[in-house]
Amino acid sequence: MKVETITYKGGLVYILDQKKLPQKKVYIKCSRYQQVADAITRMNIRGAPAIGVAAAMGIALGMSELKTKNKVDFFNQLDKISRDFAKTRPTAVNLFWAIDKMVKCAHRCEEKSLSSIKKLLIKEAIDIYNKDIQTNKKIGKYGAQLIHKKAMILTHCNAGALATAGYGTALGVIRKAHEQKKNIKVFVDETRPYLQGARLTAWELKEEKIPFTLITDNMAGYFMYQGKINVVIVGADRIAANGDVVNKIGTYTVSVLARKHNIPFYVAAPVSTFDITKSSGKEIVIEERNFQEVTHIGKKRITPKGIEVANPAFDITPHDDITAIITEKGVIKPPFKKNIKRIIGNK
Amino acid sequence: MKVETITYKGGLVYILDQKKLPQKKVYIKCSRYQQVADAITRMNIRGAPAIGVAAAMGIALGMSELKTKNKVDFFNQLDKISRDFAKTRPTAVNLFWAIDKMVKCAHRCEEKSLSSIKKLLIKEAIDIYNKDIQTNKKIGKYGAQLIHKKAMILTHCNAGALATAGYGTALGVIRKAHEQKKNIKVFVDETRPYLQGARLTAWELKEEKIPFTLITDNMAGYFMYQGKINVVIVGADRIAANGDVVNKIGTYTVSVLARKHNIPFYVAAPVSTFDITKSSGKEIVIEERNFQEVTHIGKKRITPKGIEVANPAFDITPHDDITAIITEKGVIKPPFKKNIKRIIGNK
Repeated sequence: MKVETITYKGGLVYILDQKKLPQKKVYIKCSRYQQVADAITRMNIRGAPAIGVAAAMGIALGMSELKTKNKVDFFNQLDKISRDFAKTRPTAVNLFWAIDKMVKCAHRCEEKSLSSIKKLLIKEAIDIYNKDIQTNKKIGKYGAQLIHKKAMILTHCNAGALATAGYGTALGVIRKAHEQKKNIKVFVDETRPYLQGARLTAWELKEEKIPFTLITDNMAGYFMYQGKINVVIVGADRIAANGDVVNKIGTYTVSVLARKHNIPFYVAAPVSTFDITKSSGKEIVIEERNFQEVTHIGKKRITPKGIEVANPAFDITPHDDITAIITEKGVIKPPFKKNIKRIIGNK
Repeated sequence: MKVETITYKGGLVYILDQKKLPQKKVYIKCSRYQQVADAITRMNIRGAPAIGVAAAMGIALGMSELKTKNKVDFFNQLDKISRDFAKTRPTAVNLFWAIDKMVKCAHRCEEKSLSSIKKLLIKEAIDIYNKDIQTNKKIGKYGAQLIHKKAMILTHCNAGALATAGYGTALGVIRKAHEQKKNIKVFVDETRPYLQGARLTAWELKEEKIPFTLITDNMAGYFMYQGKINVVIVGADRIAANGDVVNKIGTYTVSVLARKHNIPFYVAAPVSTFDITKSSGKEIVIEERNFQEVTHIGKKRITPKGIEVANPAFDITPHDDITAIITEKGVIKPPFKKNIKRIIGNK
């Protein structure tokens, strides 16, 4: 990886500010956990696996900062900090998964000294980070087996190195297929309103020298109709027990188009993205974000003032529209309910 | 109408600069025909019927300017000016229809004095303008019969007063249904890359106090899935003899989504939009516009530099996806080939 999305170094968390990409590479230096939480809320860091890693590092940072010598106080603070992170974004389940891992880690070693617990929490966060990269490389390996030579792949949003600790999920599959010299070509949806495709995926693919064409979201249908796209791969923010996928707004439309044109539609996501407590996508909360993401580009207003705007950040792709889900434990095919249970189990 | 899209007044053509909307209402004052042609090419004025009117007024202006007293020179100039207008935009057939009307008008009265021909050309252009408004009002009347009370209507791009001499085609239907107090609500696709929805349709609906919600193009599927959209109406840039519709990029995707959700998909367009010399949409040239419309918003770059970008301005919606085409001569239903021939004839 040419650029690190997030790192824990010298007792500080460094977050690559994705709001400034692709114009500037700037790191936000966080010395307090609230700065990490704010970076998640404000989407300086985004992408389901990446915000899981950020929350883990943020909790490690927050606990390290504590001056208290009282264990009850310490664990009360752990509760508070965990709750603060849980409030940052509502949809990506990796966030709650990572928070849960950190809390369990602390409780597992609660008999130890506070300084030992602090060290173990930092180790746990760095572990989550390292495992995420390994996970993505496994996803890439499994996924690349599904990509034929000269594939013309559409991807939506950014499920890349920037959305994870590194390598990426959907872009991990694309990276691997490119490493295998499959001579692939990528279509990148710009992904309004936040432009993760135009800003982040375009930037990652350019860095990796993977050939791609940037299109606006409403062009995907046109290129499918012309036979210029023959595979779709996207990431996921949460996957229900029945295989319904919650992912960036616009994913559902891409899935409808793929089905209409008989194009395989793959979802690449780590096991931590599954939420088997939700029987279907309809039970998952869809985050509604600030209207200014739609009415403004940067500081420039593009619409009349005082109008009504909708801004759901995600949508639900029903499992019927999905060809397969690529995880680090292998490729899950329909029937999803049965096969998710078999492969994921209780995580 | 609160604002005039284009007018011919005191020997000048005034064009409302749609690139500056919704921030500023500025008119481009054209004293030479080339200024009108440039305004079409640069999309200061856009929308199939509007550019037909602009070309007619531009030709009237260009011919009025001429100093020659020689009739052969005069008609040679008419040829040249007509060719210049024909080069401005390739897809909307109304442009060629209006040019043809102007050339025929001149030839019809070629025995008259040059000053008489000039006056008749101005009269013809103003006639085209007035008839376009009448046409739109008829379309609105026929179309509104298809709109039920409390309809939740999605529209894409701007097929409004700004895309025509006035009143609009798709927005003409919406205006009429609103005048009839049908308590409708509109969803407006922002329509990347040129943002005709976010800038122009939002502005028109706000002026008319018609309730609407602005969404990004990739949200339409989500709201259809939720049952919040139950009618689609769009305009057209060219309609083939079999009913295939060429319209703003993204229209095809909306049609696929509408069909998937069993939502009627209506196209509103004047008879001048039909091109019965084309047996299907596949024979129609799709304009590829400058990549900067995608990479920049105003002067702000939103993507990395030096990347490949596609920017087709239109797409083709196959007639199978269309419920009916609303014209000033009535509503055309399938089978389109037969019914277009019956209703449109040879225009």
